[in-house]
Amino acid sequence: MTWVVIAIIVSLLGFATAGYLHSWVIKQPGGGKEIEEIGSLIRQGSQAFLRREYNILAKFVAVVAVIIFLLLPEPVWSSPNIAKNLITAISYIFGSILSGLAGLLGMNIATIANVKSAVAAKKGIAPAFSVGFRGGAVMGMAVVSTSLFGASVLYFITRDANALLGFSFGASSLALFAKAGGGIFTKTADVSADLAGKVELSIPEDDPRNPAVIADNVGDNVGDVAGMGADLFDSNIASIAAAVVIGIALNKVELVFCYGALGLLSSIIGVLNARMGKDGNPGKALNMSTYITTAIFIVLTAVASLVFNFSMRIWGATMVGLIVGVIIGITSEYFTSDEKNPVRNVAKASESGPAFTIISGFSYGLISALPSLIGIGISALVAYKLCDPLGPGYAMFGISMSALGMLSIVGMIVSNDAYGPIVDNSRGLAEMTGMGEDILRITDELDSAGNTVKAVTKGFSIAAAGLTVIALLAAYQEIVQNATGEIITFDAMDPLVFFGVLVGIGIPAIFSAMLMLGVDKNAQRMIAEIHRQFNTIPGLKEGKPGVKPDYNKCIDIATVGALKELLPAGAVAIISTLVVGFVGGIQAIGGFLLGNITSGLLIALLMANAGGCWDNSKKYIEAGNFGGKGSNAHKAAVIGDTVGDPFKDTAGPSINTQITVVSLVASLAATLFIKFSIFR
Amino acid sequence: MTWVVIAIIVSLLGFATAGYLHSWVIKQPGGGKEIEEIGSLIRQGSQAFLRREYNILAKFVAVVAVIIFLLLPEPVWSSPNIAKNLITAISYIFGSILSGLAGLLGMNIATIANVKSAVAAKKGIAPAFSVGFRGGAVMGMAVVSTSLFGASVLYFITRDANALLGFSFGASSLALFAKAGGGIFTKTADVSADLAGKVELSIPEDDPRNPAVIADNVGDNVGDVAGMGADLFDSNIASIAAAVVIGIALNKVELVFCYGALGLLSSIIGVLNARMGKDGNPGKALNMSTYITTAIFIVLTAVASLVFNFSMRIWGATMVGLIVGVIIGITSEYFTSDEKNPVRNVAKASESGPAFTIISGFSYGLISALPSLIGIGISALVAYKLCDPLGPGYAMFGISMSALGMLSIVGMIVSNDAYGPIVDNSRGLAEMTGMGEDILRITDELDSAGNTVKAVTKGFSIAAAGLTVIALLAAYQEIVQNATGEIITFDAMDPLVFFGVLVGIGIPAIFSAMLMLGVDKNAQRMIAEIHRQFNTIPGLKEGKPGVKPDYNKCIDIATVGALKELLPAGAVAIISTLVVGFVGGIQAIGGFLLGNITSGLLIALLMANAGGCWDNSKKYIEAGNFGGKGSNAHKAAVIGDTVGDPFKDTAGPSINTQITVVSLVASLAATLFIKFSIFR
Repeated sequence: MTWVVIAIIVSLLGFATAGYLHSWVIKQPGGGKEIEEIGSLIRQGSQAFLRREYNILAKFVAVVAVIIFLLLPEPVWSSPNIAKNLITAISYIFGSILSGLAGLLGMNIATIANVKSAVAAKKGIAPAFSVGFRGGAVMGMAVVSTSLFGASVLYFITRDANALLGFSFGASSLALFAKAGGGIFTKTADVSADLAGKVELSIPEDDPRNPAVIADNVGDNVGDVAGMGADLFDSNIASIAAAVVIGIALNKVELVFCYGALGLLSSIIGVLNARMGKDGNPGKALNMSTYITTAIFIVLTAVASLVFNFSMRIWGATMVGLIVGVIIGITSEYFTSDEKNPVRNVAKASESGPAFTIISGFSYGLISALPSLIGIGISALVAYKLCDPLGPGYAMFGISMSALGMLSIVGMIVSNDAYGPIVDNSRGLAEMTGMGEDILRITDELDSAGNTVKAVTKGFSIAAAGLTVIALLAAYQEIVQNATGEIITFDAMDPLVFFGVLVGIGIPAIFSAMLMLGVDKNAQRMIAEIHRQFNTIPGLKEGKPGVKPDYNKCIDIATVGALKELLPAGAVAIISTLVVGFVGGIQAIGGFLLGNITSGLLIALLMANAGGCWDNSKKYIEAGNFGGKGSNAHKAAVIGDTVGDPFKDTAGPSINTQITVVSLVASLAATLFIKFSIFR
Repeated sequence: MTWVVIAIIVSLLGFATAGYLHSWVIKQPGGGKEIEEIGSLIRQGSQAFLRREYNILAKFVAVVAVIIFLLLPEPVWSSPNIAKNLITAISYIFGSILSGLAGLLGMNIATIANVKSAVAAKKGIAPAFSVGFRGGAVMGMAVVSTSLFGASVLYFITRDANALLGFSFGASSLALFAKAGGGIFTKTADVSADLAGKVELSIPEDDPRNPAVIADNVGDNVGDVAGMGADLFDSNIASIAAAVVIGIALNKVELVFCYGALGLLSSIIGVLNARMGKDGNPGKALNMSTYITTAIFIVLTAVASLVFNFSMRIWGATMVGLIVGVIIGITSEYFTSDEKNPVRNVAKASESGPAFTIISGFSYGLISALPSLIGIGISALVAYKLCDPLGPGYAMFGISMSALGMLSIVGMIVSNDAYGPIVDNSRGLAEMTGMGEDILRITDELDSAGNTVKAVTKGFSIAAAGLTVIALLAAYQEIVQNATGEIITFDAMDPLVFFGVLVGIGIPAIFSAMLMLGVDKNAQRMIAEIHRQFNTIPGLKEGKPGVKPDYNKCIDIATVGALKELLPAGAVAIISTLVVGFVGGIQAIGGFLLGNITSGLLIALLMANAGGCWDNSKKYIEAGNFGGKGSNAHKAAVIGDTVGDPFKDTAGPSINTQITVVSLVASLAATLFIKFSIFR
């Protein structure tokens, strides 16, 4: 258990780093009364939403925990060992609490760092960058330390794969709802603020007259910070769980925790050394720290493998995961960069009207999926072939390690990603408090770097989820084989498997549709409210001094709507898995997972890249091309961007979590499906 | 061979029916000089496009025929029997010629029936309906008779499954390009005419001042008549080919041709008896004749099975196919009918702007896929379980028969479907020649019935393609097993299969994207041309008597653009199959087909239903809801409809053919993949 203990120690080191960065951010100078006031509005709105969200989720978790205790891994009335049921249920609760905690911690510091970063911008871009980045890094460190700590402590105590699966399911189910809820909130506010403000009234972004402007900034925090943190927390734990489930039989659990610990260590070093170079390019600074972290991770794992005599084949499989991440990042960049053809073609098509914006952006999204799918396929293939000669079971272990390897540097990735919404908030605060053109220019530059990095991290998290769920599929097979004592295959020509595939491919579609309809309905309500305020509050439209919109009403609409819509979509995913399992049995579930995973990847890539493409086409036009701001092309591009918002920030990224949750439900309930399904 | 001979005789009867209907339509009274002139413009445009399209495709077919001769079923330099190569190549050419011929015949009569139906409308709705329907029925009879004739004659002569696969591939590859080309043509013209005419200039649909108006009508013929005919021709032959390939080993080929012959016979009876009831409801008349045909088919096959002692289990499997068709039809109707929630919600969302129209319509499209996918999955499962007790191999034969059974009534379906564009053209002719409000009202009613039926036939053709390609997957497995002498499974956990699935699900996405980008680019060119004509031809905008736009220039733009874009998308589908096969071997292709089929169905259903939903939301608003014509909601809905046009009429329906072609390529090249692939 040496490496398990080391993993616990490294995760404590991670907590210490998070604590250090946290107090560093807190110590940075605050601003005047006005900015602190608005900052506190954002903070209160974010906390209020999270409080209400967690309130609902606590009830959900409680119900599910009881069900788990009653049924898993064996029904309690026929279980040989009720303690196992209790452990699974407690692990589930443990996972959901840690997941919620990581989100809460990250969000809290983000709502402090946004003000401090805006204030620091007065001293220049480098200090502002440092505050933004270190604020994000608190989240990054919290996410990875919590997940590694939870997994290693749990394994140290229970030595039970099932407990880890329960733990992972707890984290995932919370992440599912947190992302869905946060995603609906943030895009409701964003879309409404843009349409009612920018498009209809032609007032600038983040204008304090806009009643939805605070809600928009709250959304950044609850959606992009807390939601995204929960997502990667969940992928990270799922990859550990899958590797442990497969690794136990091979006696390779030590290796799993070794690579996990080294990954966090690399991230700590990378985060502490991140700073902006003399050239003042924030994007370069973010990328550089990622490269440094990756390089440290590669060297550390290679050395550890040589010193402790781990197989270099498994090390190779781990590296393969990193390479896929790069491929998907490059693809995402090609389809969403304004220096490449897709974005420019969509901008050009916008001259002929919004229908052409939509058709072309959507088409590029469809095309963008293939290279990444091929990348994921090849990496799984290579990892498999690399590790297959080591013996039976090693091939799948190789795939799980490639997922884990990729996620090992996730501390750095989350730090980069959480940086984005923080500086986006800073920009909003600078605009709302009238800090002047110079500060706006700096915050704009920081914000733009955040957007660029976002495309890459989005690709990374899709790839990570992709490899993780392949490993989870293998874990599911392993569990079924252990339970039945038979070799199980999922033959595509078996009509039960085929049936499962057909249903499985429909689930991410319906899941994402429900989230988008949630945004759609919710935003219609909020736009009506914005219209009401502009029409009934005298002097608001004209910006009369002292006249303020009712920000809280908009925050409330976004909150209530998001909370209403967040449960059904997630429930559909979980319940459909159970229905297919209890009808079609383990074979149908095998197919179901295959269909769900592959179509989930397709739709997630489509939505992320189409959304990014529309977003940047609009920005490309705003930069003065094809008529610039206010032209017909610009109006069309704004419509494209609005369609893209729920694509890329609500539905698309939630699919990662959906496919993970479904895979975990299948693994956990596998023993039940074996016993109680209608078809066998 | 009794039933093979009977099939030949029945198909000759089908030709006779087509001939009778053809001469009946020709004998109907023609109209005045003006309508004949415009009618002949449409006819000439359609023929010119088809001539140029076939010209290109002839070269493509010639090249592929040579490749087939050189390589299939075995490379000619190592083939034990070169005659087999020759037969496969000739069958391929035969299939492509018959497919082209069926399209040509149907389109020719459609461009005559459109004028006659408009003229007949002067006498009332019933005569106009008869002309429109019988014009479509010529196509219906031609398509089914040609396919049954070709398949039975070919089997009678060669008794070789491979020849049938070659024949089917010939039909499919032609259909692929014909549908892609026709689909791009028709939507280029439709979208451009609408945007530049209806939206920008607010002139009515089919206004003769619009330079794109003739191109729009030509598009109906080359896209909806010729293209759709080629599609169902191809599905029909593929289902026969798959059933024969699987049926040979079971000695069940007789049964295949028996059901095929009885299906055509039922369609002949149904078509000849179709007429409008006293209540004057054309939609009811169309549905009624479909129900009659179906009932006759059910009775005839049941009687034949009892008399000739065919297994009733196989009969049951055949019936299952029909039921799926109904399920998918009902689903399509729910999501595209203006009396149901989805269409009304999209119409309501349009009040908040076009982004909401797009997001909600797209979401409903995503949701609509699941019921149909479940339906296809269950029917495959039931057909399998019904026939499995008959012995090894029967399960898959059952699935192939459920596809064949469904397609047996295709003669009726094609007749209904071809009716749509004919009466759509009639409406255009009535408008352009100013035949008055009464006639317009009649043609509008006929047109609207055509649109309703279209949703159902679209669902039908997707379901038919779905079951057919499942049968083709089984045929592929059969061929591989015969060639290797081993039992082959496609295990989802095999990394080669998994790799294949990942690539396979990306292909329909990229294929449909390429077609949509084709429409996008092409329509931008045509809109520019329409603007040019309105700006440079004096008196055109005002409708000065005697001033006519340059219709031919628009036809030419649509033609050139469609011809340029039609090859690459199809080539991508075919080439990717070969690449995956030569890299990953038969296992990867198994996965590739699975991924391609399932994601093809998902995307096809999404596009067909989202497109239909947008279309009818627009019509619902035009009927006076949410502000009616000219309101903001209407403008938003028009944008949705324009996005939906290439979804539902270009990309969506072409996917059917794409998945069929890919499945046939895999089966034909299977022996090559076994020998020459990099991975095994």
